[in-house]
Amino acid sequence: MVEVDFPVDEFEARTARAQEKMHARGIDALFFTTEAEVRYFTGFRTLFWQSPTRPWFLIVPTRGMPVAVIPQIGADLMRACWIDDIRTFAAPHPTDDGIALLADALKDYGRIGMPMGRESTLRMPLRDLEALRGRLRATEFVDASDLVQQLRMVKSEREIGLLREICGIGSQSFANAGNLFARGQTLKEVFRAFRIDLLARGADDVPYLVGGAGRGGYGNVISPPSDRVLAEGDVLMLDTGATKNGYFCDFDRNFAIGPAGESVTRAHEKLVHAVTAAAQVARPGRTCADLFKAMTATLGQGEGDIGRLGHGLGMQLTEPPSITSFDRTVLRDGMVLTLEPSISLGDGKMMVHEENIVVRDGAPQFLTVPASPEIPVIGG
Amino acid sequence: MVEVDFPVDEFEARTARAQEKMHARGIDALFFTTEAEVRYFTGFRTLFWQSPTRPWFLIVPTRGMPVAVIPQIGADLMRACWIDDIRTFAAPHPTDDGIALLADALKDYGRIGMPMGRESTLRMPLRDLEALRGRLRATEFVDASDLVQQLRMVKSEREIGLLREICGIGSQSFANAGNLFARGQTLKEVFRAFRIDLLARGADDVPYLVGGAGRGGYGNVISPPSDRVLAEGDVLMLDTGATKNGYFCDFDRNFAIGPAGESVTRAHEKLVHAVTAAAQVARPGRTCADLFKAMTATLGQGEGDIGRLGHGLGMQLTEPPSITSFDRTVLRDGMVLTLEPSISLGDGKMMVHEENIVVRDGAPQFLTVPASPEIPVIGG
Repeated sequence: MVEVDFPVDEFEARTARAQEKMHARGIDALFFTTEAEVRYFTGFRTLFWQSPTRPWFLIVPTRGMPVAVIPQIGADLMRACWIDDIRTFAAPHPTDDGIALLADALKDYGRIGMPMGRESTLRMPLRDLEALRGRLRATEFVDASDLVQQLRMVKSEREIGLLREICGIGSQSFANAGNLFARGQTLKEVFRAFRIDLLARGADDVPYLVGGAGRGGYGNVISPPSDRVLAEGDVLMLDTGATKNGYFCDFDRNFAIGPAGESVTRAHEKLVHAVTAAAQVARPGRTCADLFKAMTATLGQGEGDIGRLGHGLGMQLTEPPSITSFDRTVLRDGMVLTLEPSISLGDGKMMVHEENIVVRDGAPQFLTVPASPEIPVIGG
Repeated sequence: MVEVDFPVDEFEARTARAQEKMHARGIDALFFTTEAEVRYFTGFRTLFWQSPTRPWFLIVPTRGMPVAVIPQIGADLMRACWIDDIRTFAAPHPTDDGIALLADALKDYGRIGMPMGRESTLRMPLRDLEALRGRLRATEFVDASDLVQQLRMVKSEREIGLLREICGIGSQSFANAGNLFARGQTLKEVFRAFRIDLLARGADDVPYLVGGAGRGGYGNVISPPSDRVLAEGDVLMLDTGATKNGYFCDFDRNFAIGPAGESVTRAHEKLVHAVTAAAQVARPGRTCADLFKAMTATLGQGEGDIGRLGHGLGMQLTEPPSITSFDRTVLRDGMVLTLEPSISLGDGKMMVHEENIVVRDGAPQFLTVPASPEIPVIGG
């Protein structure tokens, strides 16, 4: 028995919105190879994507349901989804991992859109893509990255419900930090305790957990845990992407191990105020660049100092848009965003802070339980 | 403070082996975009790859150390690795996510090898690859999938040590099944309990956990858990890929909920005997096809009945080679493999079984604690 995450009308609506945009652009079919896109249009959710051996293909035509061209091993699970045209191939295969079947499924389309732009990847061998194009010489392949990204940026209420649920679970685990973390623990122990707490509270999985600790700040925000022992005077930061039914939270919290020093205390306050400032301008009609400016203005930062200060959130840990000075994406009701300001504290040290919001008509809703300006103290 | 998983000589040896093969093939540089390859040659390990926003590039020249061309956000962590030529770009960027910098780093190589074949993916936008090729018109790009796969197939003793460790943790958790699983639990509860047990015993992460349950067998082997309640007469199967320092186990176990019926009992015995038969022929000089034949002969299966019956294991849940009728890869001391026979029980039901071994001169070593032929009974 396989459960699907959403009722059929969710997938019908997604497909209809895609088809509307395809008509407007003169695209005859969309062609996908990646997990998020296959799942978005079919509901097909499995961790089997961890295995790079087999390619998976999905076609969205301008009319009717998507067509799956997939390895035989996925047929049973795909049949539980809403689509009915499921074509399977034997894989791994000595000479053809589905390319002949795929070429046949695509042969009647003159203009095929596929993700080729910013943030996209190709989850099939390059040689096989070349072979496919060789079989479809009359077909034009065009970039459709932004078409799909625009669709996925605005979440349905069901998607927002799942995002709220996983952000709530993350918030509970961070609220429990006083029981999980202590001076004398190694970072590996800290990470392990936090992962287990997230799962025990109902997260399905914790695909992302990074962080750091250091006196007066940390050196980077993407490291796995080390055997470093938490000591008085440290700032500990954990940043987690846990999931519920394949939807992510992505936020972090800072903790002072023992009383915090002045610069850490001030930095934390500023970071929280920067998020508040961004939330105050996060309204339909404003842009990502506006959010960026609200945060840098609060922090007294220039444009060039940093990368981005947040991004979209949903089926992936990070999704378009990007909260940068140059991203002119107009905010819309239902967009889910992270607000993620950072401060450099000199000497290679930094601090970050992050919350997750959904843009609404009027004030945004926080999906996370927002942090207070005062940095929480462990063992304080 | 960042810890690196291996001492420098591990990476020197990997690079030297790659360079030897590059010389033999007249390849001037290898070019990579994917997590496993970047980590293999540098030790750079982070879950930040979960974010698809930024591309990461690595170049392995025929002499000297690899060169990293990466987003600024990764510089601190990459500096903890053994390489010293780290070139960074601002990302996301309005117009150029590192392509100009990458083109400059590659411009002096006439023939560049990159993974384009079986099991490979491209983790950068297709449009950016086309732009890169446009800047490097005189450069020939050739497929180097098998070069890298051949390198990675044979594990070092340090890698085998990590694989043994995570397989041992998985074996302990499966041995604890009687305390974790019970009639009346939902599959979601079963999965949650198992994940937590793996972490508590020392797994860093559980990127892969799939399975199923059903009366007299299950329908597929790639599903996430449902709210289905475990009942007397079910067979429960869990298949896990947990990790230690980024190295995977990949094996499963079957459990009968209450006394098992005759067909399930027989199927389990046959599956275990098939693994034993394969282990008896797993010697340096034999091939993957030989292992496949040993299993199908024990199970009385023809070639066409099924896909593959196992694969390589290491930094990814599945790696080359494939245990199929057509994979002529010759086994070598230090190859780590899964042996994974399956049986169809009719009526859309099946059973699978899986162990992890390392090929040695002489008999292979089991990294997992091998299952007994009698299926274990929960609540028996």
